[in-house]
Amino acid sequence: MTSILLVGSIGLDTLETPFGRAEDVLGGSASYFALAASLYAPVSMVAVVGDDFPDAHVNLLESHGIDLTGLQRVPGKTFRWSGRYRYDMNSRDTLDTQLNVFADFRPEIPEADRESEIVFLANIHPQLQLQVLEQVRQPRLVALDSMNLWIDIARDALDEVIARVDVVTMNDEEARQYADTYNLVAAAQSILARGPKTVIIKKGEHGCVVVGQSGVFAVPGYPLDDVQDPTGAGDAFAGGVIGYLASRNDYSWSTLRRALVHGSVVGSFTVQSFGVDRLATLTRPEIEDRYTLFRELTMIEPSDGTDA
Amino acid sequence: MTSILLVGSIGLDTLETPFGRAEDVLGGSASYFALAASLYAPVSMVAVVGDDFPDAHVNLLESHGIDLTGLQRVPGKTFRWSGRYRYDMNSRDTLDTQLNVFADFRPEIPEADRESEIVFLANIHPQLQLQVLEQVRQPRLVALDSMNLWIDIARDALDEVIARVDVVTMNDEEARQYADTYNLVAAAQSILARGPKTVIIKKGEHGCVVVGQSGVFAVPGYPLDDVQDPTGAGDAFAGGVIGYLASRNDYSWSTLRRALVHGSVVGSFTVQSFGVDRLATLTRPEIEDRYTLFRELTMIEPSDGTDA
Repeated sequence: MTSILLVGSIGLDTLETPFGRAEDVLGGSASYFALAASLYAPVSMVAVVGDDFPDAHVNLLESHGIDLTGLQRVPGKTFRWSGRYRYDMNSRDTLDTQLNVFADFRPEIPEADRESEIVFLANIHPQLQLQVLEQVRQPRLVALDSMNLWIDIARDALDEVIARVDVVTMNDEEARQYADTYNLVAAAQSILARGPKTVIIKKGEHGCVVVGQSGVFAVPGYPLDDVQDPTGAGDAFAGGVIGYLASRNDYSWSTLRRALVHGSVVGSFTVQSFGVDRLATLTRPEIEDRYTLFRELTMIEPSDGTDA
Repeated sequence: MTSILLVGSIGLDTLETPFGRAEDVLGGSASYFALAASLYAPVSMVAVVGDDFPDAHVNLLESHGIDLTGLQRVPGKTFRWSGRYRYDMNSRDTLDTQLNVFADFRPEIPEADRESEIVFLANIHPQLQLQVLEQVRQPRLVALDSMNLWIDIARDALDEVIARVDVVTMNDEEARQYADTYNLVAAAQSILARGPKTVIIKKGEHGCVVVGQSGVFAVPGYPLDDVQDPTGAGDAFAGGVIGYLASRNDYSWSTLRRALVHGSVVGSFTVQSFGVDRLATLTRPEIEDRYTLFRELTMIEPSDGTDA
């Protein structure tokens, strides 16, 4: 069991979907990732919140065993984001973004976490991701997530950090934009050529495609009939993937394939409630049950061995 | 080996994609379906063409063993369709549609084909699909495809024919529109409630989801880096699915799962060239090779039996 150093954002989100609304709930890439990954392995979180951040959220994270030594609490207001999902739940409008204390965030990695074997750089400015890499010593696995904003305004820094990580996760639109090609396999290959060993392209309800040195692996979306709120699904997915890898202490292609299904399962639970509600109560036995269902619903050849 | 009765459209297509242009090439739902299905089982095609329809296209269909007894050749021009695909290859603009002789098409099923065990009603007006069902005797499996146009202008007839078939195939947008719900699993369940045993939802590059009485099966898209022209992929997919079922003479859930992968494989070849070009030369060994690759790229648990 390897512990994970996580650096990302914590926010207070106001979410609207066709199925409801939630105000000032715990959000941010680090929150979703940490709650997911902590189901599998110890997580140390480096992030920043303001003095308005509710104790209840701190307690929730701590109750999941997440190490908050690196959580900076500074005067001012916590990062806030507000978004509304449209009917199709795949497109959303950002209604409001207030960086607040996040505007001056400089990640400081606690001494004990500088030896971390696994580092996950959640979606923050690539300059901050680079600052993290300056502070850690010889991690065995570094993964990052990013977003269209950084492709637009911080391309050079993003190129630099991508060249220094092992695993890149992006959603389909981001990968297309970053690689300047519509085809996702071609986009992944273009990113691989910059140095990473593995590219994980998240396709929301359509699952994910992974391209690595050992080949391609495709995972369909887990079919759900009760999606409430897609917020954070990609971060929870990444938490499940990286958490599973940490729990196995093995980064081989076959373990990665299982990890991607774990990520898909955790992501599928996440979208069935608002915000982090479902993640907060999720258990490993629930994950294992859905993992088994997932295997069954994607298995081409039944176990009776009849050939095609 | 069971033979398939197919009723659908034949057209002359003019296609533009970011990768090229093809003028007056063989098109129509029946052409793609027949070329795909004939790789697996005998196909009898009922359709209509005008007196301008090139002999070369007739020869191509006949060279694949497709029975054209039911092909009506009437005075006038063949159905023509012209479309342009955008950069993302998922959305297209119809530039021109000329129904021509297709406007007065009334399917007449040759006597020998009225006993067909499998009937595929490709995408034509649901009233014509109903006329086919009036002419056949006790088929074991009836499947249909449809499109948004008929949901808009012939909803009652579409409801009636859907209630009388075993398998419904639609693409994701059509299923959402028909069932008036965005969620695909809920849409499929709504269609199942009308009578069919199986609903196959085609998601283009994202694969397909099948919902039946025995559960749900999800197939990811086959990752390709060289998509040339998506035209007819859905019809070729259906041809692979129904063709495989006919070749096995078995409509069980486990055979259906394999059939869906065969359909996905045939569809994936189809989009790698313009029009029916690739389908016209495709062989069963090529299909078997890619089927094996497809299994590998979706198999969660490697064959070494290590548990999760």
